[in-house]
Amino acid sequence: MDTYTFASSQELFLRATKVLPCGIPGHFGPAPLVPPDAYPFFCRSARGAHFTDVDGNDLIDYMCAYGPMVLGYGNEVVDAAAARQREKGDLLPVSSPVMVELAEKLTSMIAGAEWAFFAKNGGDVVGYATMIARSATGRPLIVAIDRGYHGVAPWMQGLGHHGVTVADLAGYVRIPWNDPAAFERVLEEHPGQIAGFISTPYHHPTFGDSALPAEGYWARIRELCDRHGVLLIVDDVRCGFRIGLHGSADFFGFAPDLACYCKALANGYPISALVGTAGMKDEAAKVFYTGSYWYQAAPMAAALACLSELERLDAAATMQAYGKELTAGLQRLADKHGYELRVTGMPSMPYMRLTDDPSLMLHQRWCAECTRRGAYFTSHHNWFMSCAHTREDLERTLAIADDAFAALEKSPEGQGVS
Amino acid sequence: MDTYTFASSQELFLRATKVLPCGIPGHFGPAPLVPPDAYPFFCRSARGAHFTDVDGNDLIDYMCAYGPMVLGYGNEVVDAAAARQREKGDLLPVSSPVMVELAEKLTSMIAGAEWAFFAKNGGDVVGYATMIARSATGRPLIVAIDRGYHGVAPWMQGLGHHGVTVADLAGYVRIPWNDPAAFERVLEEHPGQIAGFISTPYHHPTFGDSALPAEGYWARIRELCDRHGVLLIVDDVRCGFRIGLHGSADFFGFAPDLACYCKALANGYPISALVGTAGMKDEAAKVFYTGSYWYQAAPMAAALACLSELERLDAAATMQAYGKELTAGLQRLADKHGYELRVTGMPSMPYMRLTDDPSLMLHQRWCAECTRRGAYFTSHHNWFMSCAHTREDLERTLAIADDAFAALEKSPEGQGVS
Repeated sequence: MDTYTFASSQELFLRATKVLPCGIPGHFGPAPLVPPDAYPFFCRSARGAHFTDVDGNDLIDYMCAYGPMVLGYGNEVVDAAAARQREKGDLLPVSSPVMVELAEKLTSMIAGAEWAFFAKNGGDVVGYATMIARSATGRPLIVAIDRGYHGVAPWMQGLGHHGVTVADLAGYVRIPWNDPAAFERVLEEHPGQIAGFISTPYHHPTFGDSALPAEGYWARIRELCDRHGVLLIVDDVRCGFRIGLHGSADFFGFAPDLACYCKALANGYPISALVGTAGMKDEAAKVFYTGSYWYQAAPMAAALACLSELERLDAAATMQAYGKELTAGLQRLADKHGYELRVTGMPSMPYMRLTDDPSLMLHQRWCAECTRRGAYFTSHHNWFMSCAHTREDLERTLAIADDAFAALEKSPEGQGVS
Repeated sequence: MDTYTFASSQELFLRATKVLPCGIPGHFGPAPLVPPDAYPFFCRSARGAHFTDVDGNDLIDYMCAYGPMVLGYGNEVVDAAAARQREKGDLLPVSSPVMVELAEKLTSMIAGAEWAFFAKNGGDVVGYATMIARSATGRPLIVAIDRGYHGVAPWMQGLGHHGVTVADLAGYVRIPWNDPAAFERVLEEHPGQIAGFISTPYHHPTFGDSALPAEGYWARIRELCDRHGVLLIVDDVRCGFRIGLHGSADFFGFAPDLACYCKALANGYPISALVGTAGMKDEAAKVFYTGSYWYQAAPMAAALACLSELERLDAAATMQAYGKELTAGLQRLADKHGYELRVTGMPSMPYMRLTDDPSLMLHQRWCAECTRRGAYFTSHHNWFMSCAHTREDLERTLAIADDAFAALEKSPEGQGVS
């Protein structure tokens, strides 16, 4: 099987390093997350579940822009809805009627949601949720999960990350995932001080296996929140609409007070949302929270169309089915080549690693070999399925993975790529 | 002169209150900032400096979406650039070449800027700047200005706002505007603890007069920063490109280490930017900072086109000239009707108030009377000029203001509107 090269990406990356920190900053950046000579860095175009990089290589995308792409790049239904709204106006002097329609749609879809609020980043609405919890309870502390990702604000990153101070973390207590007893201890140690409990619906850290909620976990957390007057906030930014269309909390059988949405909400148009129960509406109204572009109407129209398409396509089930078939196929291939591929998390956003090398270097090399053959895999982060992945994509991906395993066997100790 | 009514806006607002906190949350919301029966709340369409609300009323816009609109709604050059990029792709699996081009453009325009970083909210890049300052200096404290607006994160809002705790403010010291002696005292009281000084280039609080920097103010602040190893961060989110095209710091004759941009950057497309000196690039690279939609390419293409248009139109000077003529005309009309209209701040983003009633209720009534006649004024916030405002708009605005003053005279004590 031919392998791609990425000369134009690398050339442009060198140019980028002159005017941007890291060349490409943030989670799209190459280092230290992928071997820099084996990945495309810049995109020329994209359609469906495929993209063409600046070297002209065609790749099947399993990162889906790290989540936002859920219906395929260039989805005609969503793009047409955004275009129609742009004709009327996008960012306007006052609000747009579509904001009301979107709030009505979202509250009709998400179990228990009686109101919605719109922003841009996932972190925006997580921050708003924590402020509402503190305002509503008059208490200072938020409990979060060790290694739970909620965005890039200092408290979200935690100590040890550059730019984070001890004072940034004063309002937060971290406990392990799947450990209600730890939550109970924190409630006892800080009586009347805990405003909110925030967590993703299941645990999906980077560089580590995902973990689903243990039997009875969420029921116990909800019970402890109720007993102690603590608000339960679910960060459904990454999982939202890939697990269930009524909210991931509904899928796992619990009812949060506040829930945060972002990525899959509008197929890539920039919008995030907080939804909440009726009891939280007046509390939310007390907290002033806003941003320059948050009333932008085209992303709201895109979200409205995207949500209807997700329903029409039974999207969560569709992505789960594709993910199950893909990961089972990849595990069979690993087995055939004498490796063990561990798959964790929900099938629509699986985390994978080859357990044969605990350093993850072997796994990184396999992901790079797949990418060089046209299946865009990252090694440290969960992948994302979309409704645009086809049976042909699945078969092609498995053929690529097979050839990539064979390349690993030929050079089992190599640090570079074949 | 006929006055508008806003029945459809009010009807839709009632519907909005069922599914959104406050009906319209945030700075686009009606209460407590404007008389709710005298303002449009929802927009049907917009073109140039005008918009049509859902009742079909045509209004000349002086809020410019609170800043982002700088070239006119529906600007063809910017919209075409965004559309061309969307054809290639908008939010993609990897970065887009246009990100590099935009960074090159911005660093060529902004004095002293050697690199750029892109996000969505103004508050995003302010937060990043404070993290870079702490990371680069190893110090915990940021000095900011009393009532200086930087966004909605808890420290930005300050105590007394719902959802803000004492712990949120531990890393911040506030001092009065135009008071280098206060900064010096803080530096003495916290030796080796101050990481950064952040401020807008001039002071533009809500519900209060704007204040330009006093003679020698910025030179003294820069000197104190240099002497104490403190990073100087300018929040140019609101002023950027409305005062000068090389950055507002350049206009006021000082050189910051980091500068934040947002509103006027892309004529309404959602993008913000942090730029910095060469010495700050490696420091910026150390701080992890990212967001789901920050690599969206269409807003970057829009920004690139917007910046070129701003240069072609000599935009800052154009808006200053319009603002000068408008505010002088409004002051003449106030005088003619026996009122005093105080105008502060830069002419491209003036803050106005009728001094005859310190409660600001008279001023609020005058703004409402103008709005009901087709000139969209708010009473608590600085206005924004754009390059799309025409001579015809100016004359029409002055005629409206004249009639609105006459309406105030007829009902000098009235709490409602005529």
